[in-house]
Amino acid sequence: MTEQVHGGDVYRHPDVIDFSSNMNPLGTPESVMRAAQESMCRIANYPDVRCERLIRALGDAEQVPQEWLICGNGAAELIFALAFALRPKKALLPAPTFAEYEQALRAAGSEICFYELSHENNLQADVGLAEAIRREKPEMVFLCNPNNPTGLLISQAVMEEVRSVCRQERSFLVMDECFLDFVEGGEQLSQKKHLADQKLFILRAFTKRYAMAGLRLGYGICADESVLERMRAAMQPWSVSIPAQAAGEAALQEKEYIQRSMQIVRTEREFLRSVLEECGFKVYNSVANYLFFRAPAGLREALLKRGIMIRSCANYRNLGEEYYRIAVRKHEDNIKLQAALGALAGKEEGKWQKQS
Amino acid sequence: MTEQVHGGDVYRHPDVIDFSSNMNPLGTPESVMRAAQESMCRIANYPDVRCERLIRALGDAEQVPQEWLICGNGAAELIFALAFALRPKKALLPAPTFAEYEQALRAAGSEICFYELSHENNLQADVGLAEAIRREKPEMVFLCNPNNPTGLLISQAVMEEVRSVCRQERSFLVMDECFLDFVEGGEQLSQKKHLADQKLFILRAFTKRYAMAGLRLGYGICADESVLERMRAAMQPWSVSIPAQAAGEAALQEKEYIQRSMQIVRTEREFLRSVLEECGFKVYNSVANYLFFRAPAGLREALLKRGIMIRSCANYRNLGEEYYRIAVRKHEDNIKLQAALGALAGKEEGKWQKQS
Repeated sequence: MTEQVHGGDVYRHPDVIDFSSNMNPLGTPESVMRAAQESMCRIANYPDVRCERLIRALGDAEQVPQEWLICGNGAAELIFALAFALRPKKALLPAPTFAEYEQALRAAGSEICFYELSHENNLQADVGLAEAIRREKPEMVFLCNPNNPTGLLISQAVMEEVRSVCRQERSFLVMDECFLDFVEGGEQLSQKKHLADQKLFILRAFTKRYAMAGLRLGYGICADESVLERMRAAMQPWSVSIPAQAAGEAALQEKEYIQRSMQIVRTEREFLRSVLEECGFKVYNSVANYLFFRAPAGLREALLKRGIMIRSCANYRNLGEEYYRIAVRKHEDNIKLQAALGALAGKEEGKWQKQS
Repeated sequence: MTEQVHGGDVYRHPDVIDFSSNMNPLGTPESVMRAAQESMCRIANYPDVRCERLIRALGDAEQVPQEWLICGNGAAELIFALAFALRPKKALLPAPTFAEYEQALRAAGSEICFYELSHENNLQADVGLAEAIRREKPEMVFLCNPNNPTGLLISQAVMEEVRSVCRQERSFLVMDECFLDFVEGGEQLSQKKHLADQKLFILRAFTKRYAMAGLRLGYGICADESVLERMRAAMQPWSVSIPAQAAGEAALQEKEYIQRSMQIVRTEREFLRSVLEECGFKVYNSVANYLFFRAPAGLREALLKRGIMIRSCANYRNLGEEYYRIAVRKHEDNIKLQAALGALAGKEEGKWQKQS
C-alpha cells in the first residue's frame, strides 16, 4: 500500500489540524467550488482534450502564447510527463527538494546526481549548484523556487549562473514555480522572461494558489512546442477533468483573493516564525506559505497527540529526523499550534523549550 | 494542438447530439453527481493517495482482495502506467482496437506488432491471434473485450487459446473489459477468474458504466502486487481526484441503474441496428453499448450538418473511411438519427439507401 509520506494525510488522521500540506490558508474560493459543482451536470461528456477555454484564460493571465501552455492533472502529472517524454540519461537535482522529481526520473530510467545544499550555508542554493551542472553535464535539471521544503529563494546571481551553464551544456531546465505565487514580488522573480532564450520549462499549479489540491490542476509553460508535443504523446488526452477545467477558469477571475492570500501569508508566517523561535527552534528564512525549521526529533508525534499534524522532513535527502515543515494557516489555527507547543514545553521539561 | 480524434468532441460542436462517445445512455446517476458535488467542500485537501474507502468498496463489489486493486485518473492513465512500468520490449495488439494502447506503448519505447483482424471473418478475433502471439513472443498483449470500436466479443475458444499461449510465452496479458458491463452475462465472460493463474491485468472503468467520463475514474485488477507497485512508481500519488473518489463510492451503490442500463442498451441497440440495416449499411454484431458499421464515406460530415455527430473510424488501423461507430443513446435521440438518415436517403438519390 502506498504510504502518504507527503504530508496531508488527513484520511488516516481525520480530526487533526493539518499543518502538513501547503495550501492557501484562505481555503478554496467560493467561486471555484461553485464552478466545479455546476460543471457536474456535464460529466457524462469527456473533458475537452484541448482545455481550450482554460488555455485561453491562462494565456491572457500569464501573457504568453497559448501554444506555449500545457495543462495537467496537477503539476505532478506534468513532472512525470516531462521525465517520460524527454527521458534524460542523466538529471541533476538539489537535495533537499520536492520528492516527485526523483520518483519521475527514476521511473523514466534516468541516472540522477544530487547537489547537496550546504548546511553551513543554511541550505541556500549557491554557485556550487552551477558548478555541479557544469561538471555533471545533466540533460535535465529540476529546480524548485522557492524550494520545497525550505521555502528559500534562489538568489538572482545564482539563478543567472545556473541559466548560463544550462545554456552552455544544453541542459533542459525545469523551474518549478508552484510556490512563487505566495512570494512578494514573485512575478518579477519568475524565470518566465527567459522562456524564449533557452531550454526552459516553467511549472505552475492551481493546487496551492487556490487551495484546490483535491481537484488536481497544474500547468506548464515552454516556448519549445516540440517538447509539449512529446509530453502529450506520453499522456492520456483526457487527463484534466471537467470540474478541474471549470474550477481553473473561475480561479483565474479571483484577483482580490490573491492579494488577501499574500497578506495573510506574510502576517501569519512571521507570527509562526516568532512562535517557533520562541521554542528555540532554528527557523529557516522561508518566503513562501510554509516554514521550515529544525527541532528535536519526535515533535511530529508529540503534536499529533495534541491534534496537530506537521510535516516531518526526515524522508528528504540531505535532511534528517530533526527537520520539519509547517504550512502557514489562519490565525485561529496558528494559535492552536502555539498553545500545543507551549503545552509540550511545559510538560517535557525543557526538551521543546528555548535552549539558549 | 491536440486533435480530439477520439470522438466526443462536443467542445468544437456544442449543439450536436453526440453519438460519437460511448456513454451509458441513462446519463450520470443523480447520486454520483451529488456525491461529487458534496465532496467539493473538501478539495483544499489532497486526495487520499490510497483511495482507501473506494478500494474497500471495489474489493467488495469485485470480490477480489483489496491488495489486487489500483485506481487511476480514468482507465487511460492505467494503460500508460502499465506501459511505463513494465516497458515491454515488444507488444502485440489486434487491429483495429482502442488507440491508447499503441500511444502508450510507443511512448514507453516498445516495438509493436499488429495482428490484423480478418475482414473475411468480419473482424472477429480468431485463433490466428493466438498463433501470432506464439510467433512474435511479445512481452505484453492488450485485448479489449468486447472490442472497441467493433463491439465484438472474443469467443471462449479463442480466449482459451490466447491465455494458454500467453502462459507458455510468459506474455503479460492486459484485458480491457471496460465495456463488458453492458454485455448480458458479462460477469461470466470476465477473465477475472484467471487472475491467480497467469500474468494478467484486468482494466475496468467507471467512465462508461456510470457515464462519468468527465470526472475520470478507472481501475485495474492484478494478482501480482509487484506489478501494481511498479505502476505506482510510474504514477503521481494523487492522480485520483477527491470528486472522482467520492463519485466512485456512490456509483458502486447503484444496482438498479445498471439493470436498467443493460435493458435500454439491448433494446435501443437492436432498434439502431434495424435503422442502419434499413439504410443498407453493413452492421457488425456488437454486444456492447455501441454499434460498428460500414457505410459510404462522408456519412459523418453529412450527419454533422444535420446536428448529429458519429464517430468516423477512418483513423483506426486496418479500417478506412467507410467505417463508423455510434453509441447507443436514448430512444428520443435514436429516432433523430433515424430521421436524419432518412432525410439523407431522400436527398442524395440512393447514396445512403439500401443498395440491394
